[in-house]
Amino acid sequence: MSLVVQKYGGSSVADADAIRRVAKRVAETRQAGHDVVVTVSAMGDTTDELIDLSNEVSGREHPREMDILLTAGERISMALLAMAVRDLGVGAQSFTGPQAGVITSGAYGRARIIDVAPGRLRQTLDDGDVAIVAGFQGLNQETQDVQTLGRGGSDTTAVALAAALEADVCEIYTDVDGVFSADPRVVPSARKLDVITYEEMLDMAASGAKVLMPRCVEYARRFNVPIHVRSSFSGLTGTMVVGHPEGTEGEETMEQPIIAGVAHDVSEAKITVIGVPDIPGSAARLFEAVATADVNIDMIVQNVSATHTGVTDISFTLPTAQVAAARAALEADHEAIGFRELVVDDTIGKISLIGAGMRSSSGVSAKFFSALRDAGINIEMISTSDIRISVVTRAELVDDAVRAVHTAFGLDSTQGEAVVYGGTGR
Amino acid sequence: MSLVVQKYGGSSVADADAIRRVAKRVAETRQAGHDVVVTVSAMGDTTDELIDLSNEVSGREHPREMDILLTAGERISMALLAMAVRDLGVGAQSFTGPQAGVITSGAYGRARIIDVAPGRLRQTLDDGDVAIVAGFQGLNQETQDVQTLGRGGSDTTAVALAAALEADVCEIYTDVDGVFSADPRVVPSARKLDVITYEEMLDMAASGAKVLMPRCVEYARRFNVPIHVRSSFSGLTGTMVVGHPEGTEGEETMEQPIIAGVAHDVSEAKITVIGVPDIPGSAARLFEAVATADVNIDMIVQNVSATHTGVTDISFTLPTAQVAAARAALEADHEAIGFRELVVDDTIGKISLIGAGMRSSSGVSAKFFSALRDAGINIEMISTSDIRISVVTRAELVDDAVRAVHTAFGLDSTQGEAVVYGGTGR
Repeated sequence: MSLVVQKYGGSSVADADAIRRVAKRVAETRQAGHDVVVTVSAMGDTTDELIDLSNEVSGREHPREMDILLTAGERISMALLAMAVRDLGVGAQSFTGPQAGVITSGAYGRARIIDVAPGRLRQTLDDGDVAIVAGFQGLNQETQDVQTLGRGGSDTTAVALAAALEADVCEIYTDVDGVFSADPRVVPSARKLDVITYEEMLDMAASGAKVLMPRCVEYARRFNVPIHVRSSFSGLTGTMVVGHPEGTEGEETMEQPIIAGVAHDVSEAKITVIGVPDIPGSAARLFEAVATADVNIDMIVQNVSATHTGVTDISFTLPTAQVAAARAALEADHEAIGFRELVVDDTIGKISLIGAGMRSSSGVSAKFFSALRDAGINIEMISTSDIRISVVTRAELVDDAVRAVHTAFGLDSTQGEAVVYGGTGR
Repeated sequence: MSLVVQKYGGSSVADADAIRRVAKRVAETRQAGHDVVVTVSAMGDTTDELIDLSNEVSGREHPREMDILLTAGERISMALLAMAVRDLGVGAQSFTGPQAGVITSGAYGRARIIDVAPGRLRQTLDDGDVAIVAGFQGLNQETQDVQTLGRGGSDTTAVALAAALEADVCEIYTDVDGVFSADPRVVPSARKLDVITYEEMLDMAASGAKVLMPRCVEYARRFNVPIHVRSSFSGLTGTMVVGHPEGTEGEETMEQPIIAGVAHDVSEAKITVIGVPDIPGSAARLFEAVATADVNIDMIVQNVSATHTGVTDISFTLPTAQVAAARAALEADHEAIGFRELVVDDTIGKISLIGAGMRSSSGVSAKFFSALRDAGINIEMISTSDIRISVVTRAELVDDAVRAVHTAFGLDSTQGEAVVYGGTGR
């Protein structure tokens, strides 16, 4: 018997039929002898509807009240799911984040989980019941108010509960079959990964893969919680996200693929700051200004400055939604930074190749760039980490670029797998 | 400066515009220098929609989960109202029943308020903010779960908060201008009462007047909380429900009207149990059986038994919705009670005349019965208390009966008022 934490997103509990389907899976897991804790999101579009309602009433910012409002969504879905599970003859009780012992801190709307006091959930499991917990929320002990966790909050709740309860696995149910070597909508031959490391998954998520949010993977890595990403519709085995499948951790995973997958992202824009004085401290001043606007910088490139001009250009990428805030922050600090002008480009796209195996495998970069060249893709920015290479190109070329790279690394499901396994020295 | 508790029902906060209207009134009260605590119900039909949703998912009884589900409704309205009040430049914070310190006990779905720990609300008022509290709910300290209070729960919450905070007045905002001498839909000349005693209001409510639930009035009477029933639309002064307006309590209310009003109720049915052995214990056995089915008995009449037959008939009235349960309970105990047959009549109506003044005023009963006789109303059952006379007749005659009695006691707003004031000895 093991302890399983399951998380179901909004689309998995969108209506009464969907809730009964989820209940069936929960009940079957319990009836198979496992202890079960379920984390559930708000039904379908409930959260958006509540946001719309608040805009109708006010439209201004009321962070504390907004969090109280939004938590009504999970309250509804968790109670209904508990009813449906009980109807199947399995004991179940629902709990809000505060009731479940999820302790948060930080700002309303994007609080962090700082602790989980799982006493009440443990008691529920000891009583033989399934515990159904509202995702996306917790109690701020200082204010005694509920807070929401922001995007990816329900996944993070599930992982945090799994860590606190020392669960054997945290199953994240979603509308896809698992983590794929590329977005199947772009690459029809993309293949489902059986296993991926936390580090690879983090880089995949940060590079545009939507299946898991980075914060959830980060939490899982810190507490070494195995995540099983799987479909709530098909029931098939999905993708395991784990710590160290390769090397000394176990014989069965010796053949670690070099490349996990290709991710892409067209939701970013590029700001080029032209004519920045090429003196020490310029970049610091520039990015301090952007940081005050709470903007998430991704890639940064500084041109090699032309001799004698004394000025240079700095480009960085950021979420398109944050362009206005970044621009305002830079212009407010225009004189101190001393740039000539700002150029915004929101038609960029990013392609990333991710794989822990590239640490110890040679020629990966060369093969990546030549695949892009052969596909006629012009590269505008490059950034690399030890398990990732990312390039920026035109948004309209991204799909072609992803397909070209996917094929070049032998990731297509019709290709042999040998190419991407093994290897030594990058 | 006084402390005012205001309660707004679901129709007062049915949509964004309505919420902003309520917010305006709340803000104006605060800006006039009063401390303000607001109790709010769920928006419009939210509670019914949540019940429908639970029926779609399950349809069975899940009392704990149902209460968790339903409390989402007040959570939404309270957060939205707090936002709207803050938009008007008045500080406001919303609180769930548990956060507000409302402690409950008893069964889910119809819990009772057993205590209020108003520390957090008091702090909010001391900070100069308006406290907005979810009605209809509280925390069961034993289980640490939220419970709902059932029908009239939000009114009761408001009165309980007013009692705990020693408020100067508890204003119940509704869709009518106050308590009327009769239902204005039946008696267009019914007049709004300026003042009514707790006792009269209790009897009015128990006799079919919908404006306040008996439990709320009972709570107000116990803690001597003055209630002001008024319209959320007109802004006019409504009806004060208070302790002792007559006699020694103050000169200004010496002229207590004999009659407060005429109430009617067509939501009850009559069960006649025919052929009950006329021996000691028969009635006890019969009503024990009904009590086990949790049925609310109203009036009871036992026929004078005909000489020598040794059997009698017993009739009682009860909410029509409980007829099936009562019938089942009686039939399950058929042999022990020993009756011959059950006759159910769901076409009855009840007319009640209520007034604390009838204690000390003569001829009230006589005038009541002669008014009914002159209107051609046949009386089937009679019951009296010291401030109320009720009769049962045919449902289709009730409106005529109400009008006849209302006119006979000089209650029509076009009539002089002298008739119904003063007097000694009933």
